[in-house]
Amino acid sequence: MLKEKTTVLKFGGTSVADAECIKRVCSIAIEEAKTANLVMVVSAMGKTTDGLVKLAKEFNSLPEGRELDMLLSTGEQVTASLVSMCLHEMGYAASSLVAWQAGFITERAHNRARIAKIKTERIQGHLSKGEIVVLAGFQGITDCGEVTTLGRGGTDTSAVAVAAALGAQKCDIYTDVDGVYTTDPRIIPEAKKLDIVSYEEMLELASLGAKVLHPRSVELAKKYDIDLSVRSSFKPEDKGTKVIKLSEVERMELTQAVTGVALDKKQAKLGFIGVPDTPGIASKIFTTLASNNVSVDVILQSVAREGIIDVAFTVNQDYLRKAIQISEEIVKEVGAEKVVHDESVAKISIVGAGMLNKPGIASEMFTALFDAGINIQMITTSEIKISCVIDLEHAEEAVKAIHSKFNLAGTVEEIIV
Amino acid sequence: MLKEKTTVLKFGGTSVADAECIKRVCSIAIEEAKTANLVMVVSAMGKTTDGLVKLAKEFNSLPEGRELDMLLSTGEQVTASLVSMCLHEMGYAASSLVAWQAGFITERAHNRARIAKIKTERIQGHLSKGEIVVLAGFQGITDCGEVTTLGRGGTDTSAVAVAAALGAQKCDIYTDVDGVYTTDPRIIPEAKKLDIVSYEEMLELASLGAKVLHPRSVELAKKYDIDLSVRSSFKPEDKGTKVIKLSEVERMELTQAVTGVALDKKQAKLGFIGVPDTPGIASKIFTTLASNNVSVDVILQSVAREGIIDVAFTVNQDYLRKAIQISEEIVKEVGAEKVVHDESVAKISIVGAGMLNKPGIASEMFTALFDAGINIQMITTSEIKISCVIDLEHAEEAVKAIHSKFNLAGTVEEIIV
Repeated sequence: MLKEKTTVLKFGGTSVADAECIKRVCSIAIEEAKTANLVMVVSAMGKTTDGLVKLAKEFNSLPEGRELDMLLSTGEQVTASLVSMCLHEMGYAASSLVAWQAGFITERAHNRARIAKIKTERIQGHLSKGEIVVLAGFQGITDCGEVTTLGRGGTDTSAVAVAAALGAQKCDIYTDVDGVYTTDPRIIPEAKKLDIVSYEEMLELASLGAKVLHPRSVELAKKYDIDLSVRSSFKPEDKGTKVIKLSEVERMELTQAVTGVALDKKQAKLGFIGVPDTPGIASKIFTTLASNNVSVDVILQSVAREGIIDVAFTVNQDYLRKAIQISEEIVKEVGAEKVVHDESVAKISIVGAGMLNKPGIASEMFTALFDAGINIQMITTSEIKISCVIDLEHAEEAVKAIHSKFNLAGTVEEIIV
Repeated sequence: MLKEKTTVLKFGGTSVADAECIKRVCSIAIEEAKTANLVMVVSAMGKTTDGLVKLAKEFNSLPEGRELDMLLSTGEQVTASLVSMCLHEMGYAASSLVAWQAGFITERAHNRARIAKIKTERIQGHLSKGEIVVLAGFQGITDCGEVTTLGRGGTDTSAVAVAAALGAQKCDIYTDVDGVYTTDPRIIPEAKKLDIVSYEEMLELASLGAKVLHPRSVELAKKYDIDLSVRSSFKPEDKGTKVIKLSEVERMELTQAVTGVALDKKQAKLGFIGVPDTPGIASKIFTTLASNNVSVDVILQSVAREGIIDVAFTVNQDYLRKAIQISEEIVKEVGAEKVVHDESVAKISIVGAGMLNKPGIASEMFTALFDAGINIQMITTSEIKISCVIDLEHAEEAVKAIHSKFNLAGTVEEIIV
């Protein structure tokens, strides 16, 4: 009964927000199911997860991770059953499966667990009966039977992981935007949709607050070489943006210096001021933060002046309180004068696969910011990315300046297509 | 770490309707947990289940049982996690468990599955760590890993079943009424609360539309001799109604003729008119209905006149459409003239453990109805129950007449206490 091809389609919260939306995604799925064994992976409807988090706060100011996962995982279970009912109404065989049924095993961690393995027997059993399988995304269970969730955007990762486990020929991520853009179109209306983007670029964009794909889903897709696309459930005729291998991009000679501009407004900056320049200071600070599960993003260590340095770093605003608390605890130990912090910062980044083959990209970015009168507080670079921390109030302005500097609105189509 | 005593407390939808209600039931639980290993069994919050059923109808006019169970079971999962969070906030260790974690195995049936067994290892593991265990009621899983639900009111059954499986010393069912009454206090304001009632009487009352306890929970409590009480979470100081063994009631010489009056307005009557009086007719009709899962309640076969009989019966209104369809299919086969039906009927019943030791109770009931000018359409009796099917529009009037005839308002306190 199994067809040759297997396809995984993921539908995010806005794509399944109400009955009309769900009927729309069911039509997309039915069309796909004509030629492939079909697995749908669904998110909670609309703003359900936010609503559940808010509900939890009525009972506990800091809900335990285990119980929060128990609560949040119901959102996707609701969607999966409704989608399955909708497919039945439309005349198609379908079964919803939640994590413990679908064999989604994660590590023993709550709220941000990583998938360890997927036991696909049961999914394959339903597929071989000709059913569309509707999986509740975002959730897993541990080997000892605890409910876990994968973190915000985790349904993308559920979809790519099950595509990898099933050896699926493609994985389409349906969302409320019709693809990946050179930057956020809400800031720059002229932003252009990319028809293709490399995993590496997508990964940097995803990590940088371009909230199209969950970073871990891109990592997984890259690792298992999954044919991944970002598409809109509201414009199913549009092919969206295809995420492909860097080598393939290069072979196609499509590499360009800058693919996109990403903005992250959820950053906060902390600084240890007046630290004696002795070995082991940075190690002490960042080991302590890491062991308390605070992820640090940009790090800047000033050049020593009279044996004294400053160490600054950024964290996601959600971790600021914890980071301040930990920093205050070790301020004496590292011999610093004081700890300061600033929530009014943003990180702006440019990403491009061909960046390092073309010198001068960084300086062009800095010049664009300088010309716009925007001060750069911190800089960090990777192979295909340059990020600057700037004042939050100039964030949108900075995106405009850089987007314009690299001619992303006008030229991308010509370069890419 | 385990205490000597184990207690199960069940909290229904109105008892966990909002944050304030949940805090109230957590206080009740914490008090109980001081002296016993404590298991809480919770329903979905307020009208959640109704809301989910309505939601399902937006997608499918007749949702498949499997998917409906998947959907509905989320309601109790939400409550269980919130109750657990609330207990944490109040400083107590607690863990929520859903059916697949708590080992609630049911038969392979949806929407009205019966519990087959409870594998209590995991519940006991949490209890032995000194935690309060918060179970999602109403749900189970089959031996092949499908989600099931136990039917409306099923959380009562979850609670009694887990009390039996754990060998619990008591099981308190907390609801929005403070006990079992001689009849529905909304109809007869003078209705009296019963301090004790026998399992058998409770079972008849529960089956007869006195919606205090799920009938299967009473059966189970009787079978495993569970110390069961019905109490109000809004008046925890009130001891409620204790459900005890009939033999114990008799030993206490508390047996009375009529314990309560129950009214069921969800009945519908069907009749096969003009059936030839040949053997096997009743068997044919009721076997066909049973094999189509239609539960028949009262059955009346008229005395043959000129070789012709009428066969009338009642079903729950929810099954009327199906019952009509099945009846129409076999009307020729049984040689009947036609099938008629009537939705405007109600069943009124009196229940009392000592009924059969006191002749004349039935005639007193019939007299009460006659004096009130109410026609009796059908009669059925059991050891401790007499039921009459009457016109729906006289239902409340009938309850008043009978409640008054047996002096239930005035004398019960003296007899019972």
